[in-house]
Amino acid sequence: MKKLVNDVHAVVRETLEGFALAHSDLVDVHYSPDFVTRHAPKADGKVGLVSGGGSGHEPLHAGFVGEGMLDAAVPGAVFTSPTPDPILEATKAADHGAGVLHIVKNYTGDVLNFETAAELADMEDIKVATIVVNDDVAVEDSLYTAGRRGVAGTIFVEKIAGAAAERGDSLEEVTRIATKVNDQTRSMGLALGPCTVPHAGKPSFDLGEDEIELGIGIHGEPGYRRGAMESADSLVAELYERVRDDLGLTEGERVVALINGMGGTPLSELYICFRALGALLASDGIEIARQMVGNYVTSLEMPGVSVTLMRADDELLELFDAPVTTVAWK
Amino acid sequence: MKKLVNDVHAVVRETLEGFALAHSDLVDVHYSPDFVTRHAPKADGKVGLVSGGGSGHEPLHAGFVGEGMLDAAVPGAVFTSPTPDPILEATKAADHGAGVLHIVKNYTGDVLNFETAAELADMEDIKVATIVVNDDVAVEDSLYTAGRRGVAGTIFVEKIAGAAAERGDSLEEVTRIATKVNDQTRSMGLALGPCTVPHAGKPSFDLGEDEIELGIGIHGEPGYRRGAMESADSLVAELYERVRDDLGLTEGERVVALINGMGGTPLSELYICFRALGALLASDGIEIARQMVGNYVTSLEMPGVSVTLMRADDELLELFDAPVTTVAWK
Repeated sequence: MKKLVNDVHAVVRETLEGFALAHSDLVDVHYSPDFVTRHAPKADGKVGLVSGGGSGHEPLHAGFVGEGMLDAAVPGAVFTSPTPDPILEATKAADHGAGVLHIVKNYTGDVLNFETAAELADMEDIKVATIVVNDDVAVEDSLYTAGRRGVAGTIFVEKIAGAAAERGDSLEEVTRIATKVNDQTRSMGLALGPCTVPHAGKPSFDLGEDEIELGIGIHGEPGYRRGAMESADSLVAELYERVRDDLGLTEGERVVALINGMGGTPLSELYICFRALGALLASDGIEIARQMVGNYVTSLEMPGVSVTLMRADDELLELFDAPVTTVAWK
Repeated sequence: MKKLVNDVHAVVRETLEGFALAHSDLVDVHYSPDFVTRHAPKADGKVGLVSGGGSGHEPLHAGFVGEGMLDAAVPGAVFTSPTPDPILEATKAADHGAGVLHIVKNYTGDVLNFETAAELADMEDIKVATIVVNDDVAVEDSLYTAGRRGVAGTIFVEKIAGAAAERGDSLEEVTRIATKVNDQTRSMGLALGPCTVPHAGKPSFDLGEDEIELGIGIHGEPGYRRGAMESADSLVAELYERVRDDLGLTEGERVVALINGMGGTPLSELYICFRALGALLASDGIEIARQMVGNYVTSLEMPGVSVTLMRADDELLELFDAPVTTVAWK
């Protein structure tokens, strides 16, 4: 294994230290327990937003802490849920008297640990609501997950609910909007190859020389089929059709479209995938209202891509467009 | 070879089409010849800035077209200089009557083709000045290069000269500042593995299971040594020391520091490298005035990293901090 690390057991800690040094104008990093908060937050009675999960998906989640988005993020070990203790501390830091929304990707460990932290917060009189993001249409149930997995659509929930909280919406209203985003968002990804978890030291799965996996999870969980490499246009069409059909998108509707790189894919290939997605949407008469192309929810150095579509309306677009100041969404 | 492409000979064209679709609010993409300009530029007598070079280094250069930075970018084929014709057209589009600065990375093909384009522009009464960027301290002369190569430091030239042009500086003054940035900037990189040029279909070089290459070029050109994998701290120290010594940095000075990913390196590893760089600078009593961590000048999916340092003063920092609106520098 060749990785730019020192101690494989200190990867998350040293990443946080580098992140803190690079972005001290935007975030404060807390250690033992490890969590990230906004630098100089306004304690103005706004609803707090906390997300988190296993590390290895950078810039998710700490890259989305800042005005207009998250109040705090909780990084676990690589591909491993954070424990309740740092989630509780992040929740306390994010609480400005109006309650806190937990944004949780649907993995059994995350759901359980955020739930425990919410109960502990409740004992300290902090009102917590929870949205479990489950946008991945690839498989029902999975390694680590009952039901559908939460993947790249999570950033839409964080952005849009974050904007609602920033304008002063109540916890109930922010939760309603976060739920709406999750309901209107679907994703699916594919991998051209595996990634290597530093402390494991070997690739998380094997793929043949010309083989790819459709419906891959962001921790390398199995998808729904393996097959031979195909053209970008053909692969994006397969991802798109499953997402479109599950969302029930029809002619005349508008979407926010995201082509998300899994970490090891050149930007040029992501743009080629976005070109393909644009052509498919156009041919179905679906309008791209907003779009993003880049590495937002990654799986270490995995080569691959995911397609996320959110059905858009004026309410969601206004919040999507609201100002934001974070490391990764500007 | 597994890549998210369609026709390997249409990679640049299809990337541009995706880029145009994603960023029509910021850029206009022109085809045959291929170049990228600002969307709705202000034709206000400002000096125009044009850069370009082989594709495969995205977001360089088209990602840096926009207010406060480049007026136009010219992408060649992957790892291949653009020909004079698109450079000339880009130069004409970027000329608002005050002349045009060509920002050219030091590769023989780029230097020659920009020079020819400048001569052709001169015949159309467009005044062109040129800055050849040669920040890479790894090797003197190289595959494709006489003298030192131009690498990640190029974005500092583009940003700072761009800010000078935006505030209305003359071509002579913008050129002076660009030259100063290049004089005060040094870089060096390393690769953990190769990348694959789509139309070549196989990796550009081979490295052993535990082997890395120090001083690698952004097209996979040989560095100055191959060796066994070491810790991030140790590798960053080697890059740092060569850069520091070449720049003659001493205690009490200030720098702008860039940890640049080569494309296939997880963000977490880049932050671990930045942590290492920060510690080294601190121990030498050199202040980090500004910093950047991310994938800015890449080599397709190459795993690796480079360190860039620019000796900073008030003049350069003021321009570094000036507003900018591009796809990749915000």
